[in-house]
Amino acid sequence: MPDPLAPARHDLAVANRVVSYEGIIDAFGHVSMRHPTRPDRYLISRSRSPEVVEASDIYEFTLDSEPVTPLPPGIRPYGELVIHGEIYKARPDVHAVAHHHNMAFLPFCNSGEELLPLYHMGAQIGEKVPFWDSRDEFGDTNLLVLKPEEGRSLAKALGPYWLVLMRRHGATVAAKNLTELVFRAIYSTRNAELQLMCKAQGAALSPLTPGEAKMAWDRNLQPRPQARAWEYWSVRLKKAGEYPAGAPKKASKKATKRAAHKAAKPAAKRRAGKKRR
Amino acid sequence: MPDPLAPARHDLAVANRVVSYEGIIDAFGHVSMRHPTRPDRYLISRSRSPEVVEASDIYEFTLDSEPVTPLPPGIRPYGELVIHGEIYKARPDVHAVAHHHNMAFLPFCNSGEELLPLYHMGAQIGEKVPFWDSRDEFGDTNLLVLKPEEGRSLAKALGPYWLVLMRRHGATVAAKNLTELVFRAIYSTRNAELQLMCKAQGAALSPLTPGEAKMAWDRNLQPRPQARAWEYWSVRLKKAGEYPAGAPKKASKKATKRAAHKAAKPAAKRRAGKKRR
Amino acid sequence: MPDPLAPARHDLAVANRVVSYEGIIDAFGHVSMRHPTRPDRYLISRSRSPEVVEASDIYEFTLDSEPVTPLPPGIRPYGELVIHGEIYKARPDVHAVAHHHNMAFLPFCNSGEELLPLYHMGAQIGEKVPFWDSRDEFGDTNLLVLKPEEGRSLAKALGPYWLVLMRRHGATVAAKNLTELVFRAIYSTRNAELQLMCKAQGAALSPLTPGEAKMAWDRNLQPRPQARAWEYWSVRLKKAGEYPAGAPKKASKKATKRAAHKAAKPAAKRRAGKKRR
Amino acid sequence: MPDPLAPARHDLAVANRVVSYEGIIDAFGHVSMRHPTRPDRYLISRSRSPEVVEASDIYEFTLDSEPVTPLPPGIRPYGELVIHGEIYKARPDVHAVAHHHNMAFLPFCNSGEELLPLYHMGAQIGEKVPFWDSRDEFGDTNLLVLKPEEGRSLAKALGPYWLVLMRRHGATVAAKNLTELVFRAIYSTRNAELQLMCKAQGAALSPLTPGEAKMAWDRNLQPRPQARAWEYWSVRLKKAGEYPAGAPKKASKKATKRAAHKAAKPAAKRRAGKKRR
Repeated sequence: MPDPLAPARHDLAVANRVVSYEGIIDAFGHVSMRHPTRPDRYLISRSRSPEVVEASDIYEFTLDSEPVTPLPPGIRPYGELVIHGEIYKARPDVHAVAHHHNMAFLPFCNSGEELLPLYHMGAQIGEKVPFWDSRDEFGDTNLLVLKPEEGRSLAKALGPYWLVLMRRHGATVAAKNLTELVFRAIYSTRNAELQLMCKAQGAALSPLTPGEAKMAWDRNLQPRPQARAWEYWSVRLKKAGEYPAGAPKKASKKATKRAAHKAAKPAAKRRAGKKRR
Repeated sequence: MPDPLAPARHDLAVANRVVSYEGIIDAFGHVSMRHPTRPDRYLISRSRSPEVVEASDIYEFTLDSEPVTPLPPGIRPYGELVIHGEIYKARPDVHAVAHHHNMAFLPFCNSGEELLPLYHMGAQIGEKVPFWDSRDEFGDTNLLVLKPEEGRSLAKALGPYWLVLMRRHGATVAAKNLTELVFRAIYSTRNAELQLMCKAQGAALSPLTPGEAKMAWDRNLQPRPQARAWEYWSVRLKKAGEYPAGAPKKASKKATKRAAHKAAKPAAKRRAGKKRR
Repeated sequence: MPDPLAPARHDLAVANRVVSYEGIIDAFGHVSMRHPTRPDRYLISRSRSPEVVEASDIYEFTLDSEPVTPLPPGIRPYGELVIHGEIYKARPDVHAVAHHHNMAFLPFCNSGEELLPLYHMGAQIGEKVPFWDSRDEFGDTNLLVLKPEEGRSLAKALGPYWLVLMRRHGATVAAKNLTELVFRAIYSTRNAELQLMCKAQGAALSPLTPGEAKMAWDRNLQPRPQARAWEYWSVRLKKAGEYPAGAPKKASKKATKRAAHKAAKPAAKRRAGKKRR
Repeated sequence: MPDPLAPARHDLAVANRVVSYEGIIDAFGHVSMRHPTRPDRYLISRSRSPEVVEASDIYEFTLDSEPVTPLPPGIRPYGELVIHGEIYKARPDVHAVAHHHNMAFLPFCNSGEELLPLYHMGAQIGEKVPFWDSRDEFGDTNLLVLKPEEGRSLAKALGPYWLVLMRRHGATVAAKNLTELVFRAIYSTRNAELQLMCKAQGAALSPLTPGEAKMAWDRNLQPRPQARAWEYWSVRLKKAGEYPAGAPKKASKKATKRAAHKAAKPAAKRRAGKKRR
């Protein structure tokens, strides 16, 4: 019997590889997606670096971050699963989550300086980027988000937004689907890099107006730019020999299209992805 | 019947790949050239990242940015075609255009700080680098250049120069031919990087004099340095397996030479490219 | 008769390659480990860049940095062996040492600015990062650590800590095992990069509290994150064709696991590494 | 009849490739060596980017920068040959010269800020790094060094030193042999990068004392570190498929050793390179 989750597993493995290959995540960090048909579950790799995740590494978890079926002997989950579970619980509109420690965000995580949208692609940081400080509720910790109450506290700090910076730790990004997640992870990193460059340049920051930010956000998330980015990342993975192995050939094609096109847009607006290479 | 545009298509695909491989353009941005025999048309890829453009992706457009023949089903043009069409309309001396969001320019796009030529290769930014601010005429937008009037406004801001910075968005670069375009795209980026480094170093900028800038510009655009750069980029693409596939073998050789040598110089000054490797 | 040191040699060659591939060490610098069963000896490559070290390049030295058996004709040791020997002598708890000149540390080596733990992974710099200045005891030298008394002076400056910055020269890092050494070498470099970025950003540094630093240090060194990092580095080496040749197949597998799991934790807490991939 | 210059040609091609692969030179810049037996000649590639230079591209020139035999049809020399010829003329102790525009030096070329040795490897910049400003004698030019009098002026500015910075243009580095040249080109770049990082960090520079600089310079140029660096660069080229093709097998081996070992040291001190690898 074919695995009905095979397309989702493959998409999630691709997303893991893309954020690694594009330099957003190193040995640590993790990427998840909500279960495609059961919103009370999510999919995430066992504890491995995203760069080496295969579709077969991906397991199902409840929103309480318990494995749906017991993990095989020797298979261990990530330590910070509650980041994912508690955000999916608090935010029914979120279907994909990534947590990472990209260097571009760390100066902001350290200083608490506010991130601002500084160019059209940077509008993907969202209307506001809140901070979460583990010290506020939990005092001295190892900085990780390990306990359910820590996950809930982080989800609360995220609020209705799409990116939260964790003081002295890293960033957690959320999205409506996997393509949008990778897109936001990459372009929010570019925007953070830009803000650092602007600071070094020494001029005053000139952020987008709220109106510009909203319109640029909408535009970036239309099917055409989303599909174009997904194709670009996929081809780069393939050229580098980094595309995940064992992809279910037919299913994966459809899955790729679905992931690329499943933006919050009427189906009528979707392009005939089939014609694309 | 062989495609008379095959050499041009191939050259344009190579130019797309070079600006990608050399790190000027990422998933977004686009590169076009004026039709080699019909100045009322231009060639540009369908909506794909420059890194994956093939000769077969390239279509003909009128200067009003309408496809000369209807695009096949499922084939979509770039959203910002008017950047290209309106510049070709306003500037008969321009034969190649690239639009990108390279990080080195974005701090200038954000702050409005003027770019200056800081070393001989940086003279390729041209006599002056004007700014265009979408807010001036259009108020809040998604920052993209989508409407004909936006393209016309940008072309007007470019004026008689060769590089225009778009506030909170990116850069558009123009040239007399494809080699010059790639050359300017790359070395204007280097000059922007240098200006940022100089600012971080904290000393006063010491730009070229107008006389130096003019002479360095002329020298850089002579056939020898242009051909040397084109060979360097081509070989790097080939070594990396990034050279566009399906190049018409004979036509492409000639085309490469033409692209490399077609500087605004008397034919007598052109070197016997044939002897080169 | 199989070489009982084969697994250790292989592990050490892998560690050499990882610190090279991950950009910590260039042509110069060196990595050693204490002999697995004779604490009065250590293993280190003959004088070669870590990027090209093979298991067969590794020789045994006494803690006085003399070869246990005479080196073959034409084989030369590193010039700065006493860095390793004198630290192993002074610190029985140290089982692995690396010396390097990574650019991220050099501004601190030059200015004497104190390194602080600025995110959870940065806690791997340890409680304090002392400085050693060759001028204090030795006046003008070539900056290298060549004489036993120079090595002893450096070991004394290191004191009970795990990382020492050498003024106008580089860094020396120590650890309880090879995995921890590579981990500390990489994440202390990330923390130094972050501190430079924070300085450029211009805000006050917000370091971890001592309690946070201690808990983050402990967490990072648990078997799960250590094994995850080792797998990540190994796979990256293999994909790049950089994994050391001639590894004793069976021994090497066991050795890898041992290296990855041999953290200062009760055996009961160790994961069944065998199940991994 | 075998080409007596084959080993030298091969060494020079390797040096060209190394400075390219290690990121010192891009499309422009050039590397030469004095003729091994006729000090009144030098060897340099025809006008090609160092990254693509083959042994067969290398021609002989007099110190007046005239080809010893007429160049074949279609073969063109570099435009700035006089940089090389005039330095060889003025400095009999110089046997290798490179000219480049590495980004790390350009802020210094722009501002005129003095380069200082900031760590032991940085001692390779030499006792002093003079500046040359084309404006002083020649007023407005295209910044290039094209005329014999410009080359002579640059050689005069270099004086008895080993590195000269050319205002708003780039750097020219000299050495006693090819290995030393590559070594100096790479580590002077690292030192320039470090100085920029120190400036960004905001602390006062703490350079080596003259005594330290002299001793570190001597140490770096001993046969062991020179050979170690040459092996490192060569292996990296080979792994990357960048090692120049068509090397005369036996000659090249000897040549490599010669290049690696030919430091200004008594032969008795030279190591049996043959035993290496």
